[in-house]
Amino acid sequence: MITSTSNQQVKHLQQLAKKAKERNEQGVFLVEGIKMFQEAPDDKIRKVYISKSLYEEKGQAFLRNHEYEVLEDRVFQAVSDTKTPQGILCVVEQFRYRLEDLTRGENPHLLILENLQDPGNLGTILRTAEGAGADGIILNRASVDLYNPKTIRSTMGSVYRMPFLYVEEIEEILPELKRRNIRTYAAHLKGKNCYDGEDYRTGTAFFIGNEGNGLSERLSRMADVWIRIPMEGRLESLNAAVAASILMYEVNRQRRS
Amino acid sequence: MITSTSNQQVKHLQQLAKKAKERNEQGVFLVEGIKMFQEAPDDKIRKVYISKSLYEEKGQAFLRNHEYEVLEDRVFQAVSDTKTPQGILCVVEQFRYRLEDLTRGENPHLLILENLQDPGNLGTILRTAEGAGADGIILNRASVDLYNPKTIRSTMGSVYRMPFLYVEEIEEILPELKRRNIRTYAAHLKGKNCYDGEDYRTGTAFFIGNEGNGLSERLSRMADVWIRIPMEGRLESLNAAVAASILMYEVNRQRRS
Repeated sequence: MITSTSNQQVKHLQQLAKKAKERNEQGVFLVEGIKMFQEAPDDKIRKVYISKSLYEEKGQAFLRNHEYEVLEDRVFQAVSDTKTPQGILCVVEQFRYRLEDLTRGENPHLLILENLQDPGNLGTILRTAEGAGADGIILNRASVDLYNPKTIRSTMGSVYRMPFLYVEEIEEILPELKRRNIRTYAAHLKGKNCYDGEDYRTGTAFFIGNEGNGLSERLSRMADVWIRIPMEGRLESLNAAVAASILMYEVNRQRRS
Repeated sequence: MITSTSNQQVKHLQQLAKKAKERNEQGVFLVEGIKMFQEAPDDKIRKVYISKSLYEEKGQAFLRNHEYEVLEDRVFQAVSDTKTPQGILCVVEQFRYRLEDLTRGENPHLLILENLQDPGNLGTILRTAEGAGADGIILNRASVDLYNPKTIRSTMGSVYRMPFLYVEEIEEILPELKRRNIRTYAAHLKGKNCYDGEDYRTGTAFFIGNEGNGLSERLSRMADVWIRIPMEGRLESLNAAVAASILMYEVNRQRRS
C-alpha cells in the first residue's frame, strides 16, 4: 500500500494529470471514477490505483485482474482531480485513430474543431457526438488536449468510443474529405443559409471555431457552405458545445426521417 | 483609491461572490468584465469597482456616471472571480419577475429546471434560451443559484434579458400553465415519443432534470407528455444544457417554418 504522497508513483500520476507533454510522451492518460473504470476497454488499462476504502468495500474481483496499487485515502485524495473522489483512477493507453477510421461509413458525419480551448466544452462535444451518431471528431493541434482530466470526465465514457484525430492544420485533411464527397459547412455568424435548410443525409462535416473568436477567416473560406444558427434577442453567439450539438442533432433528425 | 484587501468594501464584495444568502439578503449580485458592464441596464447598477489600470486606460466617461471606486490592481485581483481579470466589477440589483412576465406571449415557450446543480450549465441554458427565443426559465428552489458568479459569466449577458423565476416547488405553477394552455413535456429517458415528433407551435414548457439523476418521478408524472432525445452508441444521457438546447432549438425551428 502507498502511504506517502512523496511516493514516486504518486508524483508520476500528478504529472500525468497536469501535463499534456507527459501524457503524450508516455502515450497514456488518466481516467477517474467507478463508471469510467468499468467502461474502460480491458486491453487499454495499464494500471489501476484504488483507495483503501474502496478496495475494502469492493474487493479484488472488482479490479478485473488488472495490475493495481492500493493508496491510503489521504494519498488518493492527492492524486484525484475531484473534491470528493470515488477512489479509483486508471492509467489508460491513448487511442490511435487514422483518418480512414473516421471516414469509413457510407455517409460520414464529422465535426472539425479549430482552436477549441475549453476542456469541458470538448468533453461535452464528444459525449453529444456519440449520442447524435457522429463518426468522428477532428481537431487542429492548437485546440485543447482531449486527454485533459476535465475533458475526459465530461465525455462520460464517450472517449472510449468516439474516434478522434489531431492534425497540425485542418487544411491537411480537406482534400481527402473532398475525395470522399464529404461536404464541409462552416458554422459562421455571417452564414446566409440557415443550418436546417441544408441536406445532411450525405457526407457532412461541420467546422466549429474557438469559443471567443469563432472560426478563422482562413478556414471559413475553405468550407463549401456557410451556415448559421439563427439567434433571437441580443445574443452574439452560442456556446461552442451547444452550437455543435444543435448541428449534430439536426443531422441525426434528418437521417432518422 | 482602495489599496488594501482588508478594506470593508473588499470584504463585502468577497462575501457577495461567495454566498447566495448575502446576495439574496441584499437583493444584489456581481457582474464582472467589460462586456457585462456595458450591457448592464443603467438603472440596475448600484456601484462599479474598477482596477487602477483599467481606470487609467478608459477614463471616467467609461463609467457612465455610476458611483465607483478605484482599486489597486492587486486589490482588484482579490475580488475577481477570474485568473486574468479585465478590471471591472459591478454590484447589480437582482431582477424581480413574476410568472405573468414569463407567460405573457401568445404561445409561451418555457424551460422548467428541477434540481439543476451545475452553475455553468445554468448559464449556458440562459444564453441558449435567449438565442432560441424562449420566454423564460423557471427553477425550483433546490436548483443552483442563478446569481452565482460562474453562472452569471456563462450567460454572456443573457441574465439581463431572459426572464426567470424561482419557485419552492415546480408543482405550484402547473395549474397556471394549464390555464394558459401551455403543454408540459418531460425530457425523460423512458419517453416514448421522439422530441421532434411533437408540435411546439403552441404554448410549450420543457421539464429538465438534475445532471446526475434526471427528472424526479414525481415531477415526471405531472407532465402532459414524455419525450426523449434519441441516442446512439452506449450513451446513457446527454448533458443537461445540451438536452435543453436541442429542445429549445426544435421549438425555434418549428416556429420559423
